[in-house]
Amino acid sequence: MPLLRKDDIDVSSATREEVFSAHEGGKLAISLPRPIDTQRDLSLVYTPGVAQVSQAIEADPSVAKTYTWSARLVAVISDGSSVLGLGNIGPRASLPVMEGKSALFKEFSGLDSVPIVLDTTEVDEIVDTVIRISPSFGAINLEDISAPRCFEVERRLVEALKIPVMHDDQHGTAVVVLAALINACKVVGKEFSGLKVVISGAGAAGVAVANILLGSGIENIVILDSRGIIHVEREDLSSVKRELAERTNPGHLRGGVSDAFKGADVCIGLSSSTFSEDDVASMNDRATVFALSNPDPEIHPDVARRYASVVATGRSDYPNQINNVLAFPGIFRGALDADARNITLGMKLAAAEAIAELVAEDLRSDYIVPSPLDARVAAAVAESVRREATEQIS
Amino acid sequence: MPLLRKDDIDVSSATREEVFSAHEGGKLAISLPRPIDTQRDLSLVYTPGVAQVSQAIEADPSVAKTYTWSARLVAVISDGSSVLGLGNIGPRASLPVMEGKSALFKEFSGLDSVPIVLDTTEVDEIVDTVIRISPSFGAINLEDISAPRCFEVERRLVEALKIPVMHDDQHGTAVVVLAALINACKVVGKEFSGLKVVISGAGAAGVAVANILLGSGIENIVILDSRGIIHVEREDLSSVKRELAERTNPGHLRGGVSDAFKGADVCIGLSSSTFSEDDVASMNDRATVFALSNPDPEIHPDVARRYASVVATGRSDYPNQINNVLAFPGIFRGALDADARNITLGMKLAAAEAIAELVAEDLRSDYIVPSPLDARVAAAVAESVRREATEQIS
Repeated sequence: MPLLRKDDIDVSSATREEVFSAHEGGKLAISLPRPIDTQRDLSLVYTPGVAQVSQAIEADPSVAKTYTWSARLVAVISDGSSVLGLGNIGPRASLPVMEGKSALFKEFSGLDSVPIVLDTTEVDEIVDTVIRISPSFGAINLEDISAPRCFEVERRLVEALKIPVMHDDQHGTAVVVLAALINACKVVGKEFSGLKVVISGAGAAGVAVANILLGSGIENIVILDSRGIIHVEREDLSSVKRELAERTNPGHLRGGVSDAFKGADVCIGLSSSTFSEDDVASMNDRATVFALSNPDPEIHPDVARRYASVVATGRSDYPNQINNVLAFPGIFRGALDADARNITLGMKLAAAEAIAELVAEDLRSDYIVPSPLDARVAAAVAESVRREATEQIS
Repeated sequence: MPLLRKDDIDVSSATREEVFSAHEGGKLAISLPRPIDTQRDLSLVYTPGVAQVSQAIEADPSVAKTYTWSARLVAVISDGSSVLGLGNIGPRASLPVMEGKSALFKEFSGLDSVPIVLDTTEVDEIVDTVIRISPSFGAINLEDISAPRCFEVERRLVEALKIPVMHDDQHGTAVVVLAALINACKVVGKEFSGLKVVISGAGAAGVAVANILLGSGIENIVILDSRGIIHVEREDLSSVKRELAERTNPGHLRGGVSDAFKGADVCIGLSSSTFSEDDVASMNDRATVFALSNPDPEIHPDVARRYASVVATGRSDYPNQINNVLAFPGIFRGALDADARNITLGMKLAAAEAIAELVAEDLRSDYIVPSPLDARVAAAVAESVRREATEQIS
């Protein structure tokens, strides 16, 4: 969740004492669906009874889905290298965030989830470790791993494992941004595939947003990193950015923020840069501004609203909050319900469409995505993802 | 739990359907101590509030004990290489056993616990993997890892980590055997340190039982492996057995089972060998026989009782059941309550004494250890271990 920063708490009314007491003893616990009270219970759920179940799985591994908790268990895995806006705070300090993530999985999708924080930031070691512990889990949610390592970690795990693997900072964000953009586009009455989009930020979220927008049919995307517009002639690009350069910027733009913004329909802020009032004013009519940095959006939403028809932020105290919790619980639930081996672009698009559709007739410029607490969301996303995954399989 | 074998289920009255239905959906679930119902809940337990807790841990890692679940979370780790009597069935098939173990941790000691099964049997890889995931946990219970690898895995993890690490197949078994032997010795009225003990089996449990008996003051121990009595002149010994050879067999015995048994006070069966009636008959007066193989004890307890004053088995349908569940929940609970960095011989001895003492005035030849379901046991063991650990630290 790199879209939220440490001092974001300033916007909340909670005292420090309230915050810490809400974390006391941790935010997760193990419970037993069946108590072990009698010798008979003991001999059923442990030895000697359990040996029959182990033998059944040895004979047919698919039986593990029915008789262990693993098939519906999500590992929330982080190396603590890019946590909220706090940066590389290490595995131990990242644990409260990962516990929170696991709590959201349970609360919103009913999926059990366990945080596993890793005492290494080496790509090879992260990949090897996750592969080795993977028989314990039904899916892998990668979290708060810094770019560009996150791309390689995810790619190698997707290749190696036969269970769903998703780096939420990339794809969770991308799915919710797409959902919001689908609805923003309806509000302003423009054709979706014809949108001219500027993405500010080429980290985990920026790259994933670019990819999902390309995958959803938008052709004119310009990406900015800290050195300006990404284009094929730049010689300072990482392999991930180089690949994006080949697929974006069809107008061959050069320069910086102001060059990118001129005449754009949509700007999406996914770094801690700022958008000037002049830049936003230079955008096309009926512009859309997603200023997703937290706690300080790239431009104050009230200022952006003077020039843009639709404005979204990552903050809960302004309309149109772009929050990953709208996506990841339902995506993993749908993938596991479908017994999917991976989370495809099609499943992500289906998730975005489900989120967008829930707004329905309530759609207006200050209501383009449902509330993060809307209990319908995870179920709708899960069903949409499950259906898409099932169609892919069959 | 190598003391129980697959066909042990034959002694139970449960049908196959009852066994499998007791495992449906798995035996563990995640629960949330605090629900997430409102925007305020969300901002307290997740972003932005959680950032304050992460920062506090970054500044002072000891704070993690208070504000995460990790400090009281036990990882039950196995490579599935030596599961019950089933052998090397692999990580997935071992998972029901590990879930059961985690369920016993919760039920008997209140500790949360998560099974992590590993897709490797390489010592280096197991050690590296556990070290890397260790910030997620407060203690490591190694389970069902075959000998001799289990010795090196445990030794290296104890050295590398600052949290308690224990291979239960070794030390849990050893603690309960010692507790039973303390009480058996009272029943027969012999001096404990003067006992002549034969241990049949030099695997994980045999080695650990030998070590704890040496540590508790017994000097005359003779160990049998599949090739007979272990002595310093044998040239086929592994490093672990060679080390034991140096510290045992003070009478320089040579030969096989019958040579070892003659005149012994105690025999402890921890392999799948058999004890003949003649061998047991050749033991000293008021002999003690622990025939712990399951489901077929090394000698039938009714036969052993003709010659021995005290007989124990691993079975629930005979008196004096030696069951690890008497030890591990309380040992880990006590170690974590004391904030201990490791589980020392002193703590194991304290655990054994606590188990033995609970029998108290009810002590008799067919009641030398409490029932595995005796709810007093884990609490008494935890308190005894905590006190011993605290005295070591201070």
